[in-house]
Amino acid sequence: MAKVELITIGDEILVGKTQDTNARHIAVKLGEAGLTLDRITTIADDAETLKSELDAALERSDGVISTGGLGATSDDLTRPTLAEYFGGKLVVHRPTYERISAFLAQRGRKPEGDILKMAEIPDVCEAINNDAGAAPGMIFRPKPGKIFIALPGYPPEMKYLLEKGAIPALVRTLQPARVRHVVFRTAGVPESSMAERLRDFEKTLPKNIRLAYNPSLRSLDLRLWARFSDGESEAVFDEACERMRSALGDDLFGYGEETLAQSVGKMLLSRGLRLATAESCTGGAVAAEIVSVAGASDYFLGGITAYSNAAKVEFLGVKPETLEAWGAVSEETAVEMALGAQSRFGAEVAVATSGVVGPGGGSAAKPVGTVCIAVASPVRVFAKSFRFENDRGRNIERTLTAALNLVRKELLAYDGTRG
Amino acid sequence: MAKVELITIGDEILVGKTQDTNARHIAVKLGEAGLTLDRITTIADDAETLKSELDAALERSDGVISTGGLGATSDDLTRPTLAEYFGGKLVVHRPTYERISAFLAQRGRKPEGDILKMAEIPDVCEAINNDAGAAPGMIFRPKPGKIFIALPGYPPEMKYLLEKGAIPALVRTLQPARVRHVVFRTAGVPESSMAERLRDFEKTLPKNIRLAYNPSLRSLDLRLWARFSDGESEAVFDEACERMRSALGDDLFGYGEETLAQSVGKMLLSRGLRLATAESCTGGAVAAEIVSVAGASDYFLGGITAYSNAAKVEFLGVKPETLEAWGAVSEETAVEMALGAQSRFGAEVAVATSGVVGPGGGSAAKPVGTVCIAVASPVRVFAKSFRFENDRGRNIERTLTAALNLVRKELLAYDGTRG
Repeated sequence: MAKVELITIGDEILVGKTQDTNARHIAVKLGEAGLTLDRITTIADDAETLKSELDAALERSDGVISTGGLGATSDDLTRPTLAEYFGGKLVVHRPTYERISAFLAQRGRKPEGDILKMAEIPDVCEAINNDAGAAPGMIFRPKPGKIFIALPGYPPEMKYLLEKGAIPALVRTLQPARVRHVVFRTAGVPESSMAERLRDFEKTLPKNIRLAYNPSLRSLDLRLWARFSDGESEAVFDEACERMRSALGDDLFGYGEETLAQSVGKMLLSRGLRLATAESCTGGAVAAEIVSVAGASDYFLGGITAYSNAAKVEFLGVKPETLEAWGAVSEETAVEMALGAQSRFGAEVAVATSGVVGPGGGSAAKPVGTVCIAVASPVRVFAKSFRFENDRGRNIERTLTAALNLVRKELLAYDGTRG
Repeated sequence: MAKVELITIGDEILVGKTQDTNARHIAVKLGEAGLTLDRITTIADDAETLKSELDAALERSDGVISTGGLGATSDDLTRPTLAEYFGGKLVVHRPTYERISAFLAQRGRKPEGDILKMAEIPDVCEAINNDAGAAPGMIFRPKPGKIFIALPGYPPEMKYLLEKGAIPALVRTLQPARVRHVVFRTAGVPESSMAERLRDFEKTLPKNIRLAYNPSLRSLDLRLWARFSDGESEAVFDEACERMRSALGDDLFGYGEETLAQSVGKMLLSRGLRLATAESCTGGAVAAEIVSVAGASDYFLGGITAYSNAAKVEFLGVKPETLEAWGAVSEETAVEMALGAQSRFGAEVAVATSGVVGPGGGSAAKPVGTVCIAVASPVRVFAKSFRFENDRGRNIERTLTAALNLVRKELLAYDGTRG
């Protein structure tokens, strides 16, 4: 199998100023193309280091990608170093020169200054035109079967050039096996229970199909991934996906990068329903997550963050007797909060959160991590209690996810697809 | 200067399953101790690869840290590989064995299974006891002046062992120069204006003191960093910090990792004031950010997310004529929203947001990125308009930061420290 490695050039990563997010993106995109990253090396923006790293990388691997070091500032030495290393000289890349000149002209400036350095590329490479910025990508072919591709480090430009030129060039040169993959996103089921549920399914998978778990506070993602040899049919993968869907049932909320808030939004829209929120412990995080989706105004009316008991009574009509008898963190209070938001906003659906997220406020009966969530739909209202953990930030995230997931499941039921 | 490098062991990073956040944390902590990371290499969990990487790293560098590969699962080969490489054999580390046994006993389980592998360490290393988890850190000293430290990859345990044992051991062995650093956090001033303001100050800095800018959506951080040779006085650094403070004035909201929401919370608390929010375009994100701070219930009463015009009228008392005449996104509406939240929650201070965050909803007069924020204090109410950018997520973040910063500045004024 072809070996691919990544060289990240950047002092800002070595001193911890910048979090390198490029490496993960490249790893994922290579995987989708059937290639695997064998090594990632981060080095300083220094000519000698880069040259010796190129020696080692091109010896070890068939394909090498570098990111960074292609800016216009004086400490970006990558461009001249690559020209020297691959035995060429820097020449002006016309399309880039013209794009930069047009950019400067728009701002009433002449085509001059360090920025034009970005139009210079070694005459021994093939350029990948950078319509997302300035510096082009550069493809070098030092010997048959070996390929080196230099990309800028700024993530939007790197991503653009990777997709447009780097991955296609790597695939043409290294000819990886066909692959396919699907990410199934679920919520509400712990990883261990999910593993239990999928144990038999996983055993039936042929060797070329793999299942991976990726748990986070927002979802449990299941990635089904297959590699096919020449002529091998993909039907078995389609069938495995179909069996995954059945096994996941209504715990599956989406595919790929779809979020729970997007999934809930689509369901509200298709059913012609509008949502309101009543939040205590999440403090507005549920509403903010819903609003993070473009077009949320079509189905979201608004919400109340009722952090104090007085606000719960005043804005949501929670009865003082309920607060007295059951406390603010109770299913009874959560139900009244949801009903209050539903009627006061005139919404068909409402969700309410109340909990002890910590670090203070816990008691023997209601320790830190105790959370009650209620959902009111056109046909009923119900509440559910959770016992999360001991970390404020994680408890808020988990409550947010659980709240959106309860709304989602209720919308499924309301549609008549369940029970 | 001593060279330090990092080896990250982990297939999950190479396939893009996990974002490596350890490298950045280690880079920052090393910098604080006067050490610099020269290289970061990520390799697969494979014995031969690890051994050849150790050869190269210990040749190139004085100090080498590895993270990952110390779990209990069968693909973690690091422990036996290190024993073989450094010429020792695996023995049971008693304190770790006892901690794991106690952990199992608490759950009614016997001390058996793969988990106990984590108590095995090569007899040629010094252990760093892992009170934050199971696998201990391991310090090897292959020859005088050279040090290798293996840490687990799980971030909370890695961080604990780094601080407790790894950094102290590296400092003792490599004896870096004394360093000091302060991170000044500011909001509301663009990087270019700040650079202008600090230009003269920066010119007066001696060579051993450096100033770095770290801009984000939540703050513009300025890091002042100094390295001292033997016997050199630190007074000049203290004096530079003092001059930074004067230059930053009331744009400085905190130090280190303090957030704007924490800073606002402390100010509300010390003044005995309580806050309410009225949000449209931020959808609850301002309230959620305030509530992310532990103890927020002492000064935060709650908020209204009034996403629809009807909700703005109903819950915040915005006049229909105001919406009609000026539109929902206007300083006039924002002022009425803030006053409504202030009076209805009985809060001394209120903040309101209304804006076109995109991608839809823009017009020639109010393009995407137009945001109005109003603040009501015990003595006055005012609004300010902003023109942000074309990205929904970034616009929400920037509005949130601007809103908290306007509250902060108003609290400074209310305290009588300004005008």
